[in-house]
Amino acid sequence: MKGLTLYPMKKVEIIVRGEDLSFVLDLLERANVSGYTIVHNLSGKGSHGFHEGHLLFNEEDTLAMVVSVMPEEKARSILEGFAPFLNKHSGVVFVSDTMVSRIEKFKR
Amino acid sequence: MKGLTLYPMKKVEIIVRGEDLSFVLDLLERANVSGYTIVHNLSGKGSHGFHEGHLLFNEEDTLAMVVSVMPEEKARSILEGFAPFLNKHSGVVFVSDTMVSRIEKFKR
Amino acid sequence: MKGLTLYPMKKVEIIVRGEDLSFVLDLLERANVSGYTIVHNLSGKGSHGFHEGHLLFNEEDTLAMVVSVMPEEKARSILEGFAPFLNKHSGVVFVSDTMVSRIEKFKR
Repeated sequence: MKGLTLYPMKKVEIIVRGEDLSFVLDLLERANVSGYTIVHNLSGKGSHGFHEGHLLFNEEDTLAMVVSVMPEEKARSILEGFAPFLNKHSGVVFVSDTMVSRIEKFKR
Repeated sequence: MKGLTLYPMKKVEIIVRGEDLSFVLDLLERANVSGYTIVHNLSGKGSHGFHEGHLLFNEEDTLAMVVSVMPEEKARSILEGFAPFLNKHSGVVFVSDTMVSRIEKFKR
Repeated sequence: MKGLTLYPMKKVEIIVRGEDLSFVLDLLERANVSGYTIVHNLSGKGSHGFHEGHLLFNEEDTLAMVVSVMPEEKARSILEGFAPFLNKHSGVVFVSDTMVSRIEKFKR
């Protein structure tokens, strides 16, 4: 896109059960990502059956999605750190190309 | 990304009125997708005016987004199956490239 | 994808504090986008600390994400219009490639 510099980054989207959210956030913190956003109270269906989203403060029964944009090398380390968890738990991770205009917001 | 095998998939995002959510989930089930995630209580504006998100159990007045990652051939069949619906109803579908590390979670 | 024409578009995702949502929507309206979707009550962490998502009607303390799909030239004008805001406020913008089958839903 002309007239504006855009920097390629990776968008990592992680969907897990609410009870596993703290594990995911801890992994992101240890990878030193600059930030993340959490979408709560999702419902859905995966290899472990249907999860109902409830408008409750109790996260136990619902799904959460964590979205974080980061340089490629951090995305790789997060995928590697997340692999053992995915062997034993419900959860999926998607990695997509994205672009940001303010690269300083994604470094630290 | 080195040191980790990533598999290309398509991420299909479908935004419809809450009352049309069951149609979308039925379409995904019939396409035999491995899973999907539903984000409830969205608000938004489209060609049919503004929809207000309310924190109610009643889905009738709000929008919902369904996200599902799948191989390209399933994404195509979903887009084709969804076309007649989009002729008559509010709703949008986006298809994006994404990558997954655990391809077995997206097959069945 | 064979058998179906897909049109390349840009997906713009904007994450801001709830109190800044009206600024974002005004910017999108002025850019004349065809539609947008708002995900409310997010929590997250960024350069300005942790934001807690609450199931309250008060948007002041939470984050919101606005998703809008548009032609590339509109995405560029939104990024340019958003730059001064990002100098002074919390917030991030991601721009990703996506495809749509119903291009008439994204023009006006």
